Amino acid sequence: MKPEARIGEIAKFEGKEVTLCGWVYNIRSSGKIHFLLLRDGSGVIQCVAGAKDVSPGTFEAMKSLTQESSVIVTGSVRAEKRAPHCGFELTLKDVKILQIAKDYPISPKEHGPAFLLDNRHLWLRSLRQVAIMKVRNTIIRAIRDFFDQNGFLLIDSPIFTPAACEGTSTLFETNYFETKAYLTQSGQLYNEATAMAFGKVYCFGPTFRAEKSKTRRHLTEFWMVEPEMAFYDLGDTMDVCEDFLCFVVSRVLERNRADLDVLERPAGPLENVRKPFPRITHAEAIAVLRKAGAEIADNADFGGDEETILTKQFDRPIMVHRYPAEVKAFYMKGDPADRSKALCVDVLAPEGYGEVIGGGQREDDLDTLVAAIKKHGLPEEAFTWYLDLRRYGSVPHSGFGLGVERTVAWLCGLHHVRETIPFPRMMERVTP
Amino acid sequence: MKPEARIGEIAKFEGKEVTLCGWVYNIRSSGKIHFLLLRDGSGVIQCVAGAKDVSPGTFEAMKSLTQESSVIVTGSVRAEKRAPHCGFELTLKDVKILQIAKDYPISPKEHGPAFLLDNRHLWLRSLRQVAIMKVRNTIIRAIRDFFDQNGFLLIDSPIFTPAACEGTSTLFETNYFETKAYLTQSGQLYNEATAMAFGKVYCFGPTFRAEKSKTRRHLTEFWMVEPEMAFYDLGDTMDVCEDFLCFVVSRVLERNRADLDVLERPAGPLENVRKPFPRITHAEAIAVLRKAGAEIADNADFGGDEETILTKQFDRPIMVHRYPAEVKAFYMKGDPADRSKALCVDVLAPEGYGEVIGGGQREDDLDTLVAAIKKHGLPEEAFTWYLDLRRYGSVPHSGFGLGVERTVAWLCGLHHVRETIPFPRMMERVTP
Repeated sequence: MKPEARIGEIAKFEGKEVTLCGWVYNIRSSGKIHFLLLRDGSGVIQCVAGAKDVSPGTFEAMKSLTQESSVIVTGSVRAEKRAPHCGFELTLKDVKILQIAKDYPISPKEHGPAFLLDNRHLWLRSLRQVAIMKVRNTIIRAIRDFFDQNGFLLIDSPIFTPAACEGTSTLFETNYFETKAYLTQSGQLYNEATAMAFGKVYCFGPTFRAEKSKTRRHLTEFWMVEPEMAFYDLGDTMDVCEDFLCFVVSRVLERNRADLDVLERPAGPLENVRKPFPRITHAEAIAVLRKAGAEIADNADFGGDEETILTKQFDRPIMVHRYPAEVKAFYMKGDPADRSKALCVDVLAPEGYGEVIGGGQREDDLDTLVAAIKKHGLPEEAFTWYLDLRRYGSVPHSGFGLGVERTVAWLCGLHHVRETIPFPRMMERVTP
Repeated sequence: MKPEARIGEIAKFEGKEVTLCGWVYNIRSSGKIHFLLLRDGSGVIQCVAGAKDVSPGTFEAMKSLTQESSVIVTGSVRAEKRAPHCGFELTLKDVKILQIAKDYPISPKEHGPAFLLDNRHLWLRSLRQVAIMKVRNTIIRAIRDFFDQNGFLLIDSPIFTPAACEGTSTLFETNYFETKAYLTQSGQLYNEATAMAFGKVYCFGPTFRAEKSKTRRHLTEFWMVEPEMAFYDLGDTMDVCEDFLCFVVSRVLERNRADLDVLERPAGPLENVRKPFPRITHAEAIAVLRKAGAEIADNADFGGDEETILTKQFDRPIMVHRYPAEVKAFYMKGDPADRSKALCVDVLAPEGYGEVIGGGQREDDLDTLVAAIKKHGLPEEAFTWYLDLRRYGSVPHSGFGLGVERTVAWLCGLHHVRETIPFPRMMERVTP
């Protein structure tokens, strides 16, 4: 019984009769004619039924159709520039009603976010959410295409981990048979192992942070892609970040113009995302911030406010490198030119969207790394296997991580990340 | 400093001088010549250094090289059919040693599985593991390509879930702030919601089962792809299963012949994986089993032993459909022709690899589904949102799930699933 055609490919059926399966997005009727907007997940098409097009019984039955009723319609396809949504129209010949939806809870009126999130399983049917998910789909596909086409091997890192990479305060703890396991915050340490086996790798999966924050930038469960490259230094990694982001953004511009229109997201700022991205040191960024009126200490990390001020000075993403070592993780390699700086880079998106990429070169010297683990008060025994990577053929290596949801928020122009993932998980929400 | 070239693309450099970065896979020396096998994750190449090819100091230093020492080598590339691994050889001009690996724990001798699993971060460097991970990579890419090219939208389902899909006994429980959450066992229920929004969807992520079993087929953390299709019935879904598996298997045969050779996995049985797959009912399967000497009740589910006996009767995957409803999940739609049977299908791989796909048509009638939830003793309130899908435009729909690791085991010809994932998680193992 599978559908003969889908609305997204309706152009192929111009001039022909076709049967479509879907749901009523909207219906309005004059006495003599029904205008039915049909959605099927691939698009929306206007279907027109005059009193003489369909049987009297069908014409009458159509009066009972409501938003989200399920139907199978048959009609002939014609191009119609004035038709909303897809530029084609269906002149109906028959309508089979599967189910009349009674009191569908999401009406065209405005609803509050709590109500919409409670009904996320239905909210996803709305045109705006469909557009966001299509952009998300393009972004994820583009991420994989970029790495697959550039010699990287996908090597999934584990979700269950025995120890914390950067402290346990934001880890989710799980009962693992008779012991405890934690949900991964990052696949990086594992990536470092697999980069030594495969040269260039990436992992791409869900990651978890039990942060007690209710900001518009935080989810407890989010997807992250993390490439890692043996024999790449910080400069090489910044080149990859640049090529990678340009690739992803141009793919969205290529495939999702209509979705950006639905979202009223101007494409202009995205068209600016071209090489080269400004590369500024943390010290230079501090100077820019101060010039813009911010009060900030020399060795401070940046919060959302500083990132917003900073990125508004530029028309494209910027790469801020060489942060003070003290604000970065233990595994960052120190800059040989100034050991107080880390060989790291954050890529900040424009328009105030802030950090989308964090990365850098990893410490590859065994003794230096052992000292860093001690200095950070971390349990050395938990890192035995990680230290092995510096014992058996250590090489310079680096990598980065990009958060999918922040990227979706940026490219779609969304204020809050809760709309960027099908079923958002936040501090106070684990349903539906 | 990024590598100028990788071994996997060495053919491009024939007749030229090139610098490669990697690790010593093996080295043997006569008095006058060193034969160094270099690996860089993309391949292995034999490098040859005669006493006059390199400086006396370099020639001497090469004597100290050990397995997994890291090096940067420069030399000229020439085609050499007799050369092991890649068909090219490098005549060395210079070798820069980054680190001499001392006492690398994994020697060419045989090691037990516990030792190898303890050293999984290093074991992944071995040629056999590299071959498995390359096949895994091809399988995952093929899965995504199949769905992306056939009108499906990737809609990730959540990992944190508030309730169990099929009972709580095999769920991992997590402390979620002040409450509890469970790690997903399947994205199916969420897929049913998103199929109503997008028509054809798939989710693809890690899933979790806290099964207290130590068999060669079980991991606690494994990856599963799950497509779901609105307006598809059981027959349509069996068609998709067939096309999908043929696509994945043919992609591996196309891209991974050399890896299958490393694994000593005969390609013949994989070349048989062509349409049509035998479609037999559960009742017919029972008859086949009895003919093969098995004692089994009419309404029994199949275990690993039955699956092995059954699949050995056929030269390709088989699709067993219409199991007794009582052995299947509550959401399976009953067969209108015989309500004691479920409209479900299991695809069993040949050669005794057993179930790789489970799927079917979902109950789409509200009252029948509510009754099934009650009959299974499940808490109706946990399924309010799921029942909404039968209230607002319910349509026939179906889908299935394929386990990645079992598929990798089958295509690679592996006895145990522990080698099919980079960092396996089992009942007694959550490290490294």
